[in-house]
Amino acid sequence: MPSSSFSTNMRFKFSVLAIILEVILIALFGIFVRYKEVNIYLPKEEQTLHIELYPFFQDVHVMIFVGFGFLMTFLKKYGFTSVGINMLIAAVGLQWGTLMQGFWHMKRGEIHVTVKSMINADFSTATVLISFGALLGKTSPVQMMILAILEITLFSCNEYLVVDVLKATDIGASMTIHAFGAYFGLAVARVLYRPGLKKGHENEGSSYHSDMFAMIGTLFLWLFWPSFNSAIAAPGDPQYRAIVNTYFSLAACTVTAFAFSSLTEHRGKFDMVHIQNATLAGGVAVGSCADLGIQSFGAMMIGFVAAIISVIGFKFLTPFFASHLKIQDTCGVHNLHGLPGLLGGIASIIAAAIKVEHAPFHPVSPGMQAAALGCTLGIALIGGAFAGLILNLPFLGQAPDQNCYNDSVYWEVPEESKQLVEMPSEQDTQRFNVNM
Amino acid sequence: MPSSSFSTNMRFKFSVLAIILEVILIALFGIFVRYKEVNIYLPKEEQTLHIELYPFFQDVHVMIFVGFGFLMTFLKKYGFTSVGINMLIAAVGLQWGTLMQGFWHMKRGEIHVTVKSMINADFSTATVLISFGALLGKTSPVQMMILAILEITLFSCNEYLVVDVLKATDIGASMTIHAFGAYFGLAVARVLYRPGLKKGHENEGSSYHSDMFAMIGTLFLWLFWPSFNSAIAAPGDPQYRAIVNTYFSLAACTVTAFAFSSLTEHRGKFDMVHIQNATLAGGVAVGSCADLGIQSFGAMMIGFVAAIISVIGFKFLTPFFASHLKIQDTCGVHNLHGLPGLLGGIASIIAAAIKVEHAPFHPVSPGMQAAALGCTLGIALIGGAFAGLILNLPFLGQAPDQNCYNDSVYWEVPEESKQLVEMPSEQDTQRFNVNM
Amino acid sequence: MPSSSFSTNMRFKFSVLAIILEVILIALFGIFVRYKEVNIYLPKEEQTLHIELYPFFQDVHVMIFVGFGFLMTFLKKYGFTSVGINMLIAAVGLQWGTLMQGFWHMKRGEIHVTVKSMINADFSTATVLISFGALLGKTSPVQMMILAILEITLFSCNEYLVVDVLKATDIGASMTIHAFGAYFGLAVARVLYRPGLKKGHENEGSSYHSDMFAMIGTLFLWLFWPSFNSAIAAPGDPQYRAIVNTYFSLAACTVTAFAFSSLTEHRGKFDMVHIQNATLAGGVAVGSCADLGIQSFGAMMIGFVAAIISVIGFKFLTPFFASHLKIQDTCGVHNLHGLPGLLGGIASIIAAAIKVEHAPFHPVSPGMQAAALGCTLGIALIGGAFAGLILNLPFLGQAPDQNCYNDSVYWEVPEESKQLVEMPSEQDTQRFNVNM
Repeated sequence: MPSSSFSTNMRFKFSVLAIILEVILIALFGIFVRYKEVNIYLPKEEQTLHIELYPFFQDVHVMIFVGFGFLMTFLKKYGFTSVGINMLIAAVGLQWGTLMQGFWHMKRGEIHVTVKSMINADFSTATVLISFGALLGKTSPVQMMILAILEITLFSCNEYLVVDVLKATDIGASMTIHAFGAYFGLAVARVLYRPGLKKGHENEGSSYHSDMFAMIGTLFLWLFWPSFNSAIAAPGDPQYRAIVNTYFSLAACTVTAFAFSSLTEHRGKFDMVHIQNATLAGGVAVGSCADLGIQSFGAMMIGFVAAIISVIGFKFLTPFFASHLKIQDTCGVHNLHGLPGLLGGIASIIAAAIKVEHAPFHPVSPGMQAAALGCTLGIALIGGAFAGLILNLPFLGQAPDQNCYNDSVYWEVPEESKQLVEMPSEQDTQRFNVNM
Repeated sequence: MPSSSFSTNMRFKFSVLAIILEVILIALFGIFVRYKEVNIYLPKEEQTLHIELYPFFQDVHVMIFVGFGFLMTFLKKYGFTSVGINMLIAAVGLQWGTLMQGFWHMKRGEIHVTVKSMINADFSTATVLISFGALLGKTSPVQMMILAILEITLFSCNEYLVVDVLKATDIGASMTIHAFGAYFGLAVARVLYRPGLKKGHENEGSSYHSDMFAMIGTLFLWLFWPSFNSAIAAPGDPQYRAIVNTYFSLAACTVTAFAFSSLTEHRGKFDMVHIQNATLAGGVAVGSCADLGIQSFGAMMIGFVAAIISVIGFKFLTPFFASHLKIQDTCGVHNLHGLPGLLGGIASIIAAAIKVEHAPFHPVSPGMQAAALGCTLGIALIGGAFAGLILNLPFLGQAPDQNCYNDSVYWEVPEESKQLVEMPSEQDTQRFNVNM
Repeated sequence: MPSSSFSTNMRFKFSVLAIILEVILIALFGIFVRYKEVNIYLPKEEQTLHIELYPFFQDVHVMIFVGFGFLMTFLKKYGFTSVGINMLIAAVGLQWGTLMQGFWHMKRGEIHVTVKSMINADFSTATVLISFGALLGKTSPVQMMILAILEITLFSCNEYLVVDVLKATDIGASMTIHAFGAYFGLAVARVLYRPGLKKGHENEGSSYHSDMFAMIGTLFLWLFWPSFNSAIAAPGDPQYRAIVNTYFSLAACTVTAFAFSSLTEHRGKFDMVHIQNATLAGGVAVGSCADLGIQSFGAMMIGFVAAIISVIGFKFLTPFFASHLKIQDTCGVHNLHGLPGLLGGIASIIAAAIKVEHAPFHPVSPGMQAAALGCTLGIALIGGAFAGLILNLPFLGQAPDQNCYNDSVYWEVPEESKQLVEMPSEQDTQRFNVNM
């Protein structure tokens, strides 16, 4: 493979792109974004800056930066990228998301920021971080910044369609965030398929301490998921139900994930991949129905099923996807966000069909829920394939196959660590870095 | 030692037990547990879903899963179990605790969940996690699940006795959680005594990074302890006092713990065991009196004494317990939860005797406080001994002595780590794993 | 170098000092500190225990202990000290800060603690922790305890001058905490200059996992900075603006920090030092103006500039300070707190000059802002130099140059780690430890 085809030196590509992007963001904020001013002539519900949601916002904020960031640090030599580029994507995304979501709800040509819009901006970044999980180890920071812009744009359109046009219920965003982010990411991964990694890669695995770091991510996601699912629920009963349902769904999911992790391994040992991921599937799957009157045992049933499909997915589907569908899903986001997201959508159709209690003035219909699920999947898959084509452009700093899953391509890595982790392809890295 | 006596393969034992347990839990929730509906005919105090307690709940939630979980990761090869099985126990426990505590306060045959009941459910798991600290490294996941069920059942009875029958004050649960969990765990440890570990075990120690991970646990426990002690205090002055008292008790305790850690080591160096644990003793010890009018200097005096007895306990009592009383207390829970819990109970007796200010309508009497302490210790010791006998059943997956304190018995451990940490008993592990 | 000049055995020095200090603190609290009692004859604003600020307090609390503590764990062999002595300093400091700040606002000879005074007490410790960053690796625990007492005393005087006398606005404390702590620390570092470390030290660097631990600190600081800047803002619009401004300033700062980190490295790779630190500069720099009506794009411009000066500072100024000004700034606090703090002060002068919207009844004037900045810098530099002279006393347990940046001087370090990190100067350490 000629070294000229891989120019991983990001010095000017990345920095110029990032600076231009940030300047544009500041300019757009200067034109469009203003503080909200409380207008006493507005309906009461709109007379608020939503400061009361600030603790919910902070929980979601921790999930985005610590939760998603550390969850991906399980790879033994890819922690800097996991937690660092996660931070970069989220910082870009929350600014872009504020604009994209704001454009659909402008008042007098202005986008008004409140604590609620900050929660929604953080939410919008979650879709890209989920997709990042599928691509982890195989993309450059330049590619990921471009992906953030593309994906959040499409996410905002789909969210508007689902919530404002179809009036579907999806309070915890099983569909609009989790399924969307997962299938978008899988479509990108399909286009960016690397045959050279067909037989795996020596760095595509964890070390003891990288697995420990990943558990920090798992736990902060797990703990604050009730806030994720209830943050923008209607105050009172719906928000209370979202908290309670998510709490019990996750608890049931966790016990079941441990059970199936042990059951599917012939020596009965737990697999850290399952514990780090499948324990969270109950939070994803209960999302669409979280504020409905499904009772705690209904939530627990959803968590129970979510854990099973998630472990089974990790065990059997991910290898199948890699070998037969040419989709290399590094973190297994299909099993944590894709399948449980689908399950959440289906659960919301069932809940609508059996007419469980819902938020006042927000009836749910099975048809609209099904339409929401369908349009989410369609936009995600087509949008992801389109984004993949753009990311496939050859000058975006992709690493060659042998340098995948290795921080040292894009990061200064401490000298001793390079030796300690015995980087075998250091020469190659050097070779490719001198280009450009 | 014949390998037949140790069958650590958990494949069917664990998974079947866990699945059956979860199905039973879902069924019981289906029968008994319902959302609370606000009834305007109820007294005002009961007309609430306690959403205002949600930030307190989240702090307690972080303590249970991140705090307790990471605090135990100090062992060099036992981090997966510490943080993973901690998560499993808490997930089982919070479901069971909701039922057990709910049974004592049912309305019309229903258990009503609120944010407050979620805090109490999390609290109930703390007792098992404390006992887990005493047993760490020497029990199987199957044993721990059984222990969770047994201990939470007895905890709920004792709590009902202390709070509803004796009407004792114990807002931060120095007695009902900390002393109970510690002495219950010590009684179990006594029954499960392993003579083979009399001279210590090469894996019963920390590594540099495992000590760093443990500090994550210490800090999140330390930081959110004011929430632990004030979460279910009466709103207004009592809750405010619980926050302030715990804040200053911990600060005084921390300075004193550093002082005595240095003082008791002949070269004057700090010992990580003390810093990780004894700094927290002030939170335990101030618990029973937290909402009383003891003033901040009273709280600081409690923290000061707690640090001293905790460091002294680690230095002299834990070795004595192991050598003379045949109690192997891995994490030294006696010094963090047992002795400071006793101190908390005694402080509450003194506070009652000198008639410090208390919550309105909740007078405290020295006699009732003493009775609460006595009945807590009695139930914990007898219940723990009983639980130990059950856990001693030979088919529950215990590891042989030489494989104690080693994740690889029950977990898939990354290959390179096995070598990196030079597992000497890998052959033995293999040998025992092939059974069953 | 004669071993007699370095007596690092802290056994009695440290423990006696700490115990005496804690006893004095308890006595002073007994004399002066009382619960606040809500007096209905007071103005409405003063009739509060500020329980509604508790979630803000907890965020700040996490920043102080987890944020500052883990941010400094980037050194490969100095994690115990970073996170442990950080905890000690903060525990001492919050007690002393309660007294020092309280003395300026006593009522009837009493200091009243509330959740707001707890936030301020935590704030006061931040100054010492910032200074600690400049001195990291080169001072003893005894020195740091003395520094905490000295610095917080002067901080409280300066804060009173800035806020109550000059009536300057500095809601997020760009000047009174960040610039103050940084320049105070730099002045101490100048006095404690070690020529022996002129050519660097083999331990003054990071390892792969120490950089990962440091990212925990970075993220919790980054996430909760909106709470830091808004915690004591006036309720309503000012607090809302402080949250929004900090959120967007940090996001813009992060993107820009990544851009300039890549731009200033000839291979275009990201430098962990920049990502860990410069991403936070936007939070510092927006502090003084946070509650003003600068709009989100104004905040983003501040964050943009802060990132640039911070990265440039790390790249060029820190080496220059070490080589030419004899100031060894271990963590580069000048680039994270000093320069961005100055920028914050200047931004507040500009904001006052162009008359942006401010909190009601709290007009800001450019002159007073400039005076506040000047007096903060003056007191910090002179106070720091004075504190440095005291810390230079030869019997305070300083380590010899070759044992700097090494936990094992003051901590029990696990045996295997000592070998694993190949301590070359272990013999020397032993030699110095036997003294006293």
